[in-house]
Amino acid sequence: MKVPADPQWERRVRESFAQQSFMRLIGAEIAALAPGRCTLSLPFRADLCQQNGFLHAGVTSAIADSAAGYAAFSLMPAGAAVLTVEFKINLMAPAAGERFLARGLVIRAGRALTTTECDVVAIADGEEKMVARMLATMMGLQGSPEKTKA
Amino acid sequence: MKVPADPQWERRVRESFAQQSFMRLIGAEIAALAPGRCTLSLPFRADLCQQNGFLHAGVTSAIADSAAGYAAFSLMPAGAAVLTVEFKINLMAPAAGERFLARGLVIRAGRALTTTECDVVAIADGEEKMVARMLATMMGLQGSPEKTKA
Amino acid sequence: MKVPADPQWERRVRESFAQQSFMRLIGAEIAALAPGRCTLSLPFRADLCQQNGFLHAGVTSAIADSAAGYAAFSLMPAGAAVLTVEFKINLMAPAAGERFLARGLVIRAGRALTTTECDVVAIADGEEKMVARMLATMMGLQGSPEKTKA
Amino acid sequence: MKVPADPQWERRVRESFAQQSFMRLIGAEIAALAPGRCTLSLPFRADLCQQNGFLHAGVTSAIADSAAGYAAFSLMPAGAAVLTVEFKINLMAPAAGERFLARGLVIRAGRALTTTECDVVAIADGEEKMVARMLATMMGLQGSPEKTKA
Repeated sequence: MKVPADPQWERRVRESFAQQSFMRLIGAEIAALAPGRCTLSLPFRADLCQQNGFLHAGVTSAIADSAAGYAAFSLMPAGAAVLTVEFKINLMAPAAGERFLARGLVIRAGRALTTTECDVVAIADGEEKMVARMLATMMGLQGSPEKTKA
Repeated sequence: MKVPADPQWERRVRESFAQQSFMRLIGAEIAALAPGRCTLSLPFRADLCQQNGFLHAGVTSAIADSAAGYAAFSLMPAGAAVLTVEFKINLMAPAAGERFLARGLVIRAGRALTTTECDVVAIADGEEKMVARMLATMMGLQGSPEKTKA
Repeated sequence: MKVPADPQWERRVRESFAQQSFMRLIGAEIAALAPGRCTLSLPFRADLCQQNGFLHAGVTSAIADSAAGYAAFSLMPAGAAVLTVEFKINLMAPAAGERFLARGLVIRAGRALTTTECDVVAIADGEEKMVARMLATMMGLQGSPEKTKA
Repeated sequence: MKVPADPQWERRVRESFAQQSFMRLIGAEIAALAPGRCTLSLPFRADLCQQNGFLHAGVTSAIADSAAGYAAFSLMPAGAAVLTVEFKINLMAPAAGERFLARGLVIRAGRALTTTECDVVAIADGEEKMVARMLATMMGLQGSPEKTKA
């Protein structure tokens, strides 16, 4: 388990996530949080699909990106903002299922850049199936506090 | 200009795009089509954002993926289906603007795999600003006709 | 442990690796092999460096690519050839050490495409340090037997 | 044409490149330089190959990485060092030819990070063939002057 730099890390992650209007639009929620780890859960919906009725690669990427980003953010000092520099995602199987989990984790937290990965799995009939793997670079910006509701 | 394998390529691309429920959800439309090229247009909306009010990286990726995918699909033979094997995207600047364009094009169309790129630009006050660059691998599946409405 | 399709998988991997003239040039060797896994070992040499005396990113990538490729190849049927479709590598720390290990493994072996990852670590004073993570797509070509010495 | 921050950019690039021992080992040379652009040339050699006699993907990646890195470095201020954060490369065709060119260029130079791309082409019988496309992130480190011979 990694040691968070900010004792308020969990509140900070949840508040920031709550402000991602796009996560609300698609119905994604935080399923689990730990320092350096963030799991998002997304129920299947018919309006999130590509042409064959599978989850659109953009939606798979979106939950993977948010999960990886908040895994990185959880280790950043108070007052930092997180942004995605780049990511790469391999879509290994059609994203078919009742629900999807994106499990983001920090591989290495550097001073400026944090390397993260995220697996996306589909859950159908109680079974997990690997759907995608992401490898992403996140950047922490100091002195750029996240806009919070308060 | 590349030569399409299927004279009905344009109809095939438009019908397939019309079935991407997620493109409807976010409000993306085809702005331009040519063999090996596809441009999507997406107006900004407040429910497509990350925590700082910029377009979510997942939305940027989604329109880039669809634009690159249909650029590839436009060159595939009749009866083929397209799927994204993997993509990598560099998010170079905050996605802030009134409207976004994703310009996908084919770099090389192989037998099984097609390599594509896509630039995403933001338009604000009549000016274009580069937001992201994607490099993606698409796969054509023979004998897997896209499900069309008819 | 994955089940290899070809009982001769180990001989096939070792013979193919022995024909990679570039691995000989840089001094890389197979350190460990198992179905779906391949570890390469590379001693540091002053002629493998970038401008600051660290291992060149191209060398780090080369051993990661070969390790990931042979991890994939170990699961392919007899008579198949393997080629790298694409890879992405995050260089997380300067590649400084006495020796480097590239540990490749298969994430998912599909019919045509195999998704792999590879970690590269540096060993210095008996300690391992994470240097790089690769995420790569390998393709198996049927009916394209690897050219062997015999 | 981009404007270099350091009037001595060309000398700085050439001196740094001359210190890449690995470029000497494989025989790569600078073929062209301009602010934001760097082209490397590599003659084919039998000891740079993978198992089928084509250029090893690690060599293709190495010249692409150096070309993209020096394209980025050419725009950096005096006293900066350049390092590769990550790259992604699509290997579109077997790297077969008498000579290879890696043409690196800057897509966007930011304060900390520079996004670059690089095409690698093979030259055979006077014809160019596209071999690979790279998309890479470079980082400029201030106050970390490159070690030069002087």
